[in-house]
Amino acid sequence: MNLTLDGKGALYDQIARALKLEILEGRIAAGSKLPSTRVLATALGVSRKSVLQSYDLLCAEELAIARAGSGTRVAKAVPMRKASSEIGSKPQSQYAARIDSLPPVSLGAGHLRGLKYNLLYGEPLVDSALFHSWRRKLSAAALRAGPSYPRAGGYLPLRRAIADYLGRRRGVICDASEILIVGGTQQALTIVERTLLDPGDRVVVEDPHYQLAVHSLLAHGAQLVSVRTDEQGLVVRELPKGKTRLVFVAPSHQFPSGVAMTLARRLDLLRWAAQGESWIVEDDYDSEFHAGEGSLPAMRSLDLADRVIYVGSFSKTLFPSLRLGYIVCPRSLRDHFFKAKMLDDLGSPALEQAALATFIQSGQYERHLRKTVTEIAARRHAIVEALQRLAENHIELGPHRSGMHFVVWFRRLGFDRLDAFIERAKSVGLGLHPVHPYYRHMPARPGLLLGYAGLSPAQLKTAADLFARCCEGM
Amino acid sequence: MNLTLDGKGALYDQIARALKLEILEGRIAAGSKLPSTRVLATALGVSRKSVLQSYDLLCAEELAIARAGSGTRVAKAVPMRKASSEIGSKPQSQYAARIDSLPPVSLGAGHLRGLKYNLLYGEPLVDSALFHSWRRKLSAAALRAGPSYPRAGGYLPLRRAIADYLGRRRGVICDASEILIVGGTQQALTIVERTLLDPGDRVVVEDPHYQLAVHSLLAHGAQLVSVRTDEQGLVVRELPKGKTRLVFVAPSHQFPSGVAMTLARRLDLLRWAAQGESWIVEDDYDSEFHAGEGSLPAMRSLDLADRVIYVGSFSKTLFPSLRLGYIVCPRSLRDHFFKAKMLDDLGSPALEQAALATFIQSGQYERHLRKTVTEIAARRHAIVEALQRLAENHIELGPHRSGMHFVVWFRRLGFDRLDAFIERAKSVGLGLHPVHPYYRHMPARPGLLLGYAGLSPAQLKTAADLFARCCEGM
Repeated sequence: MNLTLDGKGALYDQIARALKLEILEGRIAAGSKLPSTRVLATALGVSRKSVLQSYDLLCAEELAIARAGSGTRVAKAVPMRKASSEIGSKPQSQYAARIDSLPPVSLGAGHLRGLKYNLLYGEPLVDSALFHSWRRKLSAAALRAGPSYPRAGGYLPLRRAIADYLGRRRGVICDASEILIVGGTQQALTIVERTLLDPGDRVVVEDPHYQLAVHSLLAHGAQLVSVRTDEQGLVVRELPKGKTRLVFVAPSHQFPSGVAMTLARRLDLLRWAAQGESWIVEDDYDSEFHAGEGSLPAMRSLDLADRVIYVGSFSKTLFPSLRLGYIVCPRSLRDHFFKAKMLDDLGSPALEQAALATFIQSGQYERHLRKTVTEIAARRHAIVEALQRLAENHIELGPHRSGMHFVVWFRRLGFDRLDAFIERAKSVGLGLHPVHPYYRHMPARPGLLLGYAGLSPAQLKTAADLFARCCEGM
Repeated sequence: MNLTLDGKGALYDQIARALKLEILEGRIAAGSKLPSTRVLATALGVSRKSVLQSYDLLCAEELAIARAGSGTRVAKAVPMRKASSEIGSKPQSQYAARIDSLPPVSLGAGHLRGLKYNLLYGEPLVDSALFHSWRRKLSAAALRAGPSYPRAGGYLPLRRAIADYLGRRRGVICDASEILIVGGTQQALTIVERTLLDPGDRVVVEDPHYQLAVHSLLAHGAQLVSVRTDEQGLVVRELPKGKTRLVFVAPSHQFPSGVAMTLARRLDLLRWAAQGESWIVEDDYDSEFHAGEGSLPAMRSLDLADRVIYVGSFSKTLFPSLRLGYIVCPRSLRDHFFKAKMLDDLGSPALEQAALATFIQSGQYERHLRKTVTEIAARRHAIVEALQRLAENHIELGPHRSGMHFVVWFRRLGFDRLDAFIERAKSVGLGLHPVHPYYRHMPARPGLLLGYAGLSPAQLKTAADLFARCCEGM
């Protein structure tokens, strides 16, 4: 017998573990006799006591049997640890079963990673000055936030800073007490679902939609109804009759179509929600990156019936690894949302909240936003201008005044040739991502979701040039 | 009419908001005529277009009605925004209803805050050197962690560092791929519940128990069975017959009794779980603070049937505001746990994970632990020695070799005089916390949960002295 100890933990534990491995993998046969404790102790150069203890452990686990006078034997029926391959991951709950049947996610498709001109949505605008400044803020915040459990609802100065910002910039008038700090939009949705939905409750999502929101809703057991959007946003008159618990919308910048919901539609939707006592989740992502005459008022600012759950995050305006966002809670839901957050994780980490509070209060956040908006606009202009100039007879551009991406639709290319087109682009270093996976009802023509935040204007011009060349060749 | 604009958002929006307020608060009567747009524009010194737009907004919200030739009137039936007091927080789901019926939490009772000698459990050991070093690590980590979305399962170097640490210190042999990073023990439990429990499923908790774990289970709809613990830990033979989904235990340091589960009981429980295909959540909190001959092996290290879900956190060993913990996942549950974490919040913040990885890998974490263990032991010794010397004929000490708290039981004092005793202590600056709220079945005698990590040895001696004097007077 050739035992190898792994040096981890108590000696008797190491010996027992090594023996276990030999037994379980069949190198010591079931029913066979183990060496005497004296022999094994000498062989391993350890005390007899350690070997004795390890044998006791094996007996306690019923892997071995000690008999007075006849030493210790390996048990005849050894409980085999199941090999990895044998373990089915049988879902243990309805939630787990629903997770198993979720459709695949397209966002961040890995096979195009590493391409020089990857027009991937969700790549942040990397700003080294921001990072530098953020490090200083964090360092200072470590002293201020303190070591104790944070308030589950969030660090109060941060909630005040957000309330103030929302009033000034989005016309959302609210108090710090109504703001709940969460770990990004995804957690906001988790909390909303837990508090508002029973499995089987009806929820309306826009078509097209943000996939991870839909996944979260499906995992929670929501009965999803997908409602069409047009160039004015969600088609409110097509909303289902009868009880709908929740509508999930992104009125500032529909994802991924880029449409901004018109004021008339916003008011229609608010009226519909007030009449049917439905809740509206307003995901106000990307509202900060609007070009031109400024964005429309947030639905929350128009909401008299207190039906809007306003959700924002700092993933796009600062960086995604921050994992901070917030919910502006309707008054009647506030207590439930706060308790759900507490029960979920006792609150988000305090340090980053303190750093972010300073960042907003000092005005640095809005200076950073202005700088980012300018830079994003330059990138947007570079690719839009180049595509319009070089490829407009091949593609039609969707709305592109806001955000960090837009959609282009092929004028002539059919779905049958889309994969070949994407492959051709890949061969010249251009990463392209189809938009149809975001649609519940297949669009009439193939299109692409072009994310441009991660590339410089010069790179984007080259990307547009490559794109045009791919078009010519088809 | 005297309108005050709040300066927030677009001008037409400000005007509409100010008018709304006048209407909703009854200062402009229902049915009355609004000033002409020309008159109001002059009065406010704004363009007529802005006033027109604000009237359009009021009409769209059905607060006003425009009639050709007769101007704009306030609607006759104004939809009143409900006053705060009128809004019942009627629960909107079964989850919300369950939240509403949770029992109160005793931990961190606020009414004794500010007392000089508050023996409150959960106060961290504040270490300014640690904070200083942590700030440097964070600052360096900001550059390394990067701005992108973190891996939902956690930052890989941190998971490797934890796997390595657990093998070395707790005999838990696992791979980084089995470790899921979560936002503390509370979120670990949320993920376990979502993945393993349907509402109504049976879950065993220890009596006494950690309240927030029980709350989380109740909120999730678990059918709780409370099983007695004795001086050897959970009484395994009293576990219920028939299907039990999950058992929640803290074998290193039962909360709040302080009992360490014996090896025999651990093995009994493992056998019970393997036979009944139940899952065991092993909350290994406080195992780091064991005094004397070292702690018993973690249940996970003895588990051949892959039924143990091992949970650890850094709230006690570093500081609670960090909000980082981990699950060592059984192989058959790994994928579901990872997906549940992703759907919950897309992953924990990257920066602190990167800082913590360096902290562990560099050996600083274990140096810090050794220092803390020594300091905690000094504090423990100070209060234990003083209480034994001064008050042993009044109280009996529960297990006190580990952790940051212990329980004392009154020898003679009855429940009828407990409140008076606590009040008397409060009057001399001593904060005492009863232990019976943590019990499902009322203990025979009153007892106190004494937390000592937040006070110095000298303060603890004074506290013990005050305690003895309170006893003498009863």
